Amino acid sequence: MRIRIPASFFMLLFVAILSAQAQTSPAPTPPMGWNSWNHFACKVTAADVRGAANAIASNGMKEAGYIYVNVDDCWQGGRDEQGRIQPNKNFGDMKALADYVHSKGLKFGIYSSPGPETCAGFTGSYQHEEQDAKAYAEWGVDYLKYDWCSASQVYPVSQIREVYKKMHDALQKTGRPIVFSLCQYGWDLVWRWGKDVGGNLWRTTGDIQDRYDSMATIGFGQAGLEPFAGAGHWNDPDMLEIGNGGMRHDEYITHMTLWCLLAAPLLAGNDLTRVTPEDQAILLNKEVIAVDQDPKSAQGHRVSAEGPLEVWAKPLADGSVAVGLFSRGGAFPVKVNFKDLGFTGSVHVRDLWLHKDLGSFEGEFTAQVPRHGAVLVRVWK
Amino acid sequence: MRIRIPASFFMLLFVAILSAQAQTSPAPTPPMGWNSWNHFACKVTAADVRGAANAIASNGMKEAGYIYVNVDDCWQGGRDEQGRIQPNKNFGDMKALADYVHSKGLKFGIYSSPGPETCAGFTGSYQHEEQDAKAYAEWGVDYLKYDWCSASQVYPVSQIREVYKKMHDALQKTGRPIVFSLCQYGWDLVWRWGKDVGGNLWRTTGDIQDRYDSMATIGFGQAGLEPFAGAGHWNDPDMLEIGNGGMRHDEYITHMTLWCLLAAPLLAGNDLTRVTPEDQAILLNKEVIAVDQDPKSAQGHRVSAEGPLEVWAKPLADGSVAVGLFSRGGAFPVKVNFKDLGFTGSVHVRDLWLHKDLGSFEGEFTAQVPRHGAVLVRVWK
Repeated sequence: MRIRIPASFFMLLFVAILSAQAQTSPAPTPPMGWNSWNHFACKVTAADVRGAANAIASNGMKEAGYIYVNVDDCWQGGRDEQGRIQPNKNFGDMKALADYVHSKGLKFGIYSSPGPETCAGFTGSYQHEEQDAKAYAEWGVDYLKYDWCSASQVYPVSQIREVYKKMHDALQKTGRPIVFSLCQYGWDLVWRWGKDVGGNLWRTTGDIQDRYDSMATIGFGQAGLEPFAGAGHWNDPDMLEIGNGGMRHDEYITHMTLWCLLAAPLLAGNDLTRVTPEDQAILLNKEVIAVDQDPKSAQGHRVSAEGPLEVWAKPLADGSVAVGLFSRGGAFPVKVNFKDLGFTGSVHVRDLWLHKDLGSFEGEFTAQVPRHGAVLVRVWK
Repeated sequence: MRIRIPASFFMLLFVAILSAQAQTSPAPTPPMGWNSWNHFACKVTAADVRGAANAIASNGMKEAGYIYVNVDDCWQGGRDEQGRIQPNKNFGDMKALADYVHSKGLKFGIYSSPGPETCAGFTGSYQHEEQDAKAYAEWGVDYLKYDWCSASQVYPVSQIREVYKKMHDALQKTGRPIVFSLCQYGWDLVWRWGKDVGGNLWRTTGDIQDRYDSMATIGFGQAGLEPFAGAGHWNDPDMLEIGNGGMRHDEYITHMTLWCLLAAPLLAGNDLTRVTPEDQAILLNKEVIAVDQDPKSAQGHRVSAEGPLEVWAKPLADGSVAVGLFSRGGAFPVKVNFKDLGFTGSVHVRDLWLHKDLGSFEGEFTAQVPRHGAVLVRVWK
């Protein structure tokens, strides 16, 4: 007798496996936290990192979801006689630093390169991948940003996938869940293969700069990458510049709005010990963050463009849609047609920055958008 | 007895009227020529303009369609007692200069502002619109670039349409066909009304700079403006920087490819008396220029984007489609699906930069595109 198993059983099994995979991923939603580079660059010290952890634990960021405290380049101090990676004098004891971050209920991230040297010329993981992964796990590292840098000196770029896979396997072998962040500037169209080599996120472009043009070119340039993101594996348009002073308020609003619609990792890059209430409010708006962290795990897409006026949408788990209305030029009214979102009839609209229900609208919604600014709404039937 | 006129008669009449309008427009196809600003800026003299005219008449540009020789800002020298606009000592006799340009079989363009001063602080046309239009006509001017500049000092921006209409009417009154170029940096979403105030072209953005980022942000940022362009009235993403030295060869190829797909005005902005054969070849490729000047008068649109990889298409009068394959990042293969162009089955592909038939393809075509580069093909059934 053959037992007939209905197709729906396999479908459920498949969904259960996918769901379990997403749950066991160290990055089921886009990672949130802080990274030392955008503000401190190579001047960073352990004291700065502790300061950031203190700030996050006490200023509302932790509750808002910012849990990773990540050291970027410049913490390394060479290797000892057994080849073990050492911190430099600005850092001292990395395990103590990780413990301190953990004591705040936060997670600790670190940085290396598959090449012999990091971008700033410090010791990379070349030929020490397993040894370094083991050290990170012993210290209690929860997140590794792995930056290609000098790897071009020792590998052809054609081997980039194998090179990243090698470190992924080394991290896996430690048994510790460690978010694996690929930093290779979009090379080799990484979004097509980043997941296959175990990446939880991968940089899609060169480094962001704290200027509107840089942020906008990167952010709006993510269009069409949405099929490649999902729970556990995210496109990374680079870290946040909010609070670093190079953009106006409306431009930082655009930065946060766009990054959340893109389901981008949200790694603050400012000095958290000196942040204006205005900038802090951008980083802490929970309705906006909820768009980024939504469990549907969909990256938003561009719905329409009329020159500088762009409309982007991100479908959310509850059936509503987050919609960003942007002006890359001056102050203009920007319109979204509900049929472009799959809605007909009367539609509810809520302004997420203002926490304000705007009422019901038929057919379309138009918002006045400031120069270089954005309006973010949630719409539902 | 009522005479019944078939609907097709009115349709033909309508087409005939539209066709006649396009023919009587001074810009039935996107204007082509040269403008002094991008290279000479405020140092321009009549000798430079004569030099450009000499070059165009002798280096193949005239035959390729570059017929306008346009002086930009800095030719003005105040007004005489009757309020008549005077050239400054760098220019002397404007009628003589126009005559010289005309003697080469070319057309002559000039520049002013609706404000009291031009952008560089020279005399504008404020309160002298009719008088200036008359002077231009007497000199033999064929093209006026009218640059908002100081007009904000004397008009609210809400009057921008009336201000441009005023000069259009003054030009019309002279009886001389003069191309009317609106330069207002995209303000007030000019593409929605530029035609209504008599504009033959209107700037959709701020000034271009001779850098890839500037050119690409402007060029790719034209997406969605295609419904607003047509025979006699064109979106203007600003003048060409080809030959000015700030971009690499592949980047200038992208510049020309994109501008032609956009049916953009092609105003060279380099020093035509010192041009490399490589740059000249970009400006003179007749198959590429034919895309820009195609009589269907359709502005191209973005077909797809995958992050830095973009595909744009421009339908041509003969039923073929010009397709641009771009990489805004590194060197990558870029693919176009023929179904996105409305084609099924086997499709012919010709490389327009290389003047080379590439053969027939099924379903899709992929080209290897250099970093920041472009491939331009024509495809047809």
